Amino acid sequence: MEQKLLFTDDVNGALRRIVSKSRPTAVFVLVDENTAQFVLPRLDLEATPITIPAGDEHKTLDTFAAVWDALQRGGATRHALLINLGGGMVTDLGGMAAATFKRGMPFVNVPTTLLGAVDAAVGGKTGINYGGLKNEVGVFALAADVIVSTVFFNTLPTRELWAGYAEMLKHAMLTSDDRLNELLAFEPTGDRQRLLTLLKESVEVKRRIVESDPCECGPRKALNLGHTVGHAFESLALQRACPVPHGYAVAWGLVVEGVLSHTRLGFPSLLLHRLADYVLEHYGTFHITCDDYDALLAAMRHDKKSRHGEINCTLLAACGDVRLDQAVDDDEMKTALDLYRDLFHI
Amino acid sequence: MEQKLLFTDDVNGALRRIVSKSRPTAVFVLVDENTAQFVLPRLDLEATPITIPAGDEHKTLDTFAAVWDALQRGGATRHALLINLGGGMVTDLGGMAAATFKRGMPFVNVPTTLLGAVDAAVGGKTGINYGGLKNEVGVFALAADVIVSTVFFNTLPTRELWAGYAEMLKHAMLTSDDRLNELLAFEPTGDRQRLLTLLKESVEVKRRIVESDPCECGPRKALNLGHTVGHAFESLALQRACPVPHGYAVAWGLVVEGVLSHTRLGFPSLLLHRLADYVLEHYGTFHITCDDYDALLAAMRHDKKSRHGEINCTLLAACGDVRLDQAVDDDEMKTALDLYRDLFHI
Repeated sequence: MEQKLLFTDDVNGALRRIVSKSRPTAVFVLVDENTAQFVLPRLDLEATPITIPAGDEHKTLDTFAAVWDALQRGGATRHALLINLGGGMVTDLGGMAAATFKRGMPFVNVPTTLLGAVDAAVGGKTGINYGGLKNEVGVFALAADVIVSTVFFNTLPTRELWAGYAEMLKHAMLTSDDRLNELLAFEPTGDRQRLLTLLKESVEVKRRIVESDPCECGPRKALNLGHTVGHAFESLALQRACPVPHGYAVAWGLVVEGVLSHTRLGFPSLLLHRLADYVLEHYGTFHITCDDYDALLAAMRHDKKSRHGEINCTLLAACGDVRLDQAVDDDEMKTALDLYRDLFHI
Repeated sequence: MEQKLLFTDDVNGALRRIVSKSRPTAVFVLVDENTAQFVLPRLDLEATPITIPAGDEHKTLDTFAAVWDALQRGGATRHALLINLGGGMVTDLGGMAAATFKRGMPFVNVPTTLLGAVDAAVGGKTGINYGGLKNEVGVFALAADVIVSTVFFNTLPTRELWAGYAEMLKHAMLTSDDRLNELLAFEPTGDRQRLLTLLKESVEVKRRIVESDPCECGPRKALNLGHTVGHAFESLALQRACPVPHGYAVAWGLVVEGVLSHTRLGFPSLLLHRLADYVLEHYGTFHITCDDYDALLAAMRHDKKSRHGEINCTLLAACGDVRLDQAVDDDEMKTALDLYRDLFHI
């Protein structure tokens, strides 16, 4: 499994080189309504566009099948190329469509959001939502190339930058106190060059972890930090028909799992409070009451990481000191949710 | 990629050993209406059954999604186990469902047909039909184990034995004149012990080829012999709403591609006539007129093996002397179809 990761602001040049090297029989570009309007016109690309609706609520089997339809209509062979141009929803769904079409055609990811760049860009996870659960089905399939660029970020609402920054906070927590403090002293809406530097470092953290464990059998579980609770928040928000951005759910999930890390493993209280204050200030609050606990716990037990229907988290004894496969019982999780509500004054 | 291939008539014992070794969180068994009725009751298996309709016309996205639904309802995790108990439709569709559910849960194939044993048992191809095309979408995913047994063959109609035997004829053609003559002197409805011996040899041919080329980049294309034309016959039959068994389509496809092998590469005329006579006697005729040629050629150009919309076949200069990637133009294919109709007196 090999994947080229290109950091460049010359996206047109990078795409031209990829196409002239792999000589596909046809080139398709998958965009959502947003990237069709704001990003695609900025590229000098000879490709058949396939446009899907924007938003995680459309990351469905129907949308997925519509991509198959479009590839089929366009006469795609397994030697064609699909360029996924968009956020994580486009790269996840497009990656799965390419990986399954005629048992696999090559694809290139061009993330247009910070979250897509830092999270969906490397790792080979593809998938769609199913039966009300996030990323319930999918395959591991690596893009042939990933082009990471900041040139599209100015088309994004501020909120998208913050969503991506949550994954960067996670990578920092998996690295060191210093790295986390560095990120907590910065804002992604600030200096673009500084953001690019931090982004490269962050992607390197993920790449190192993924390369050590391509199929998520062991060390890669570190990347699940914040996600057991984060996904449950996302599922609850979907059930409320009021979806929240994945990155925001991760930010809140990092706080809850930070609380668990503190109570169980002694993660430093001061750092936890700094993190919680930062998340509260920039991400606001995900509102829950104890009436939501049962639904949240049920979603956590349905998580792909769960082995026997228990709640399974990745926790930290300190930044960079990762403890995988921490089984959390219902009472412990409810207490952590109580403490989250205290920290967020709800 | 590792896959254990077990030849045994003690299927219960083999399954017990697999389950006690891998200790899945839950066991599901995928059956179609036929294997639910005739095969499952003969197994001593503690597993949640998932029943799907029988027949290639149900190898669809809807059926596929119904398996996801059942796994989700049953609380399957990625550490559960799916046993696919049935013919190639069940192992293809079940393999794809397992490979994509939560990005991959382990599965075991227990082929209950000769075709399933000789063809679907090894190789890791999974998939479903889509947009009127056979196996249009799918993934490469190896079963953890494959249990090959003849104990289920007596539940099969004779026609199913013949369907499987076509793939054995193909493997013989890929090996030697002697092997092909051996098979043309036998009938799969004959001595069961002899059939088992021939079956093992046949599976070994496929296993050797697949292991040399797991992703179908090169030598594995040998296994496509008979399939470019065979798949087109199957697609045409589907369009006529009158499906034919895959193995029968392959038998007819072997004759047409044998004709091409003869006219282009000098494949021996005597052996071609022996093959055609055998196929005509035991498989009957797939009826086509020249009015069907355009539809057939269009289907061939849509084949997954096609790179630039040309018709691509695997052909033989002699048995065992394989020539991959033979581009066939429309006139040459139409002539071969004419000769097929001559050989079959239609």
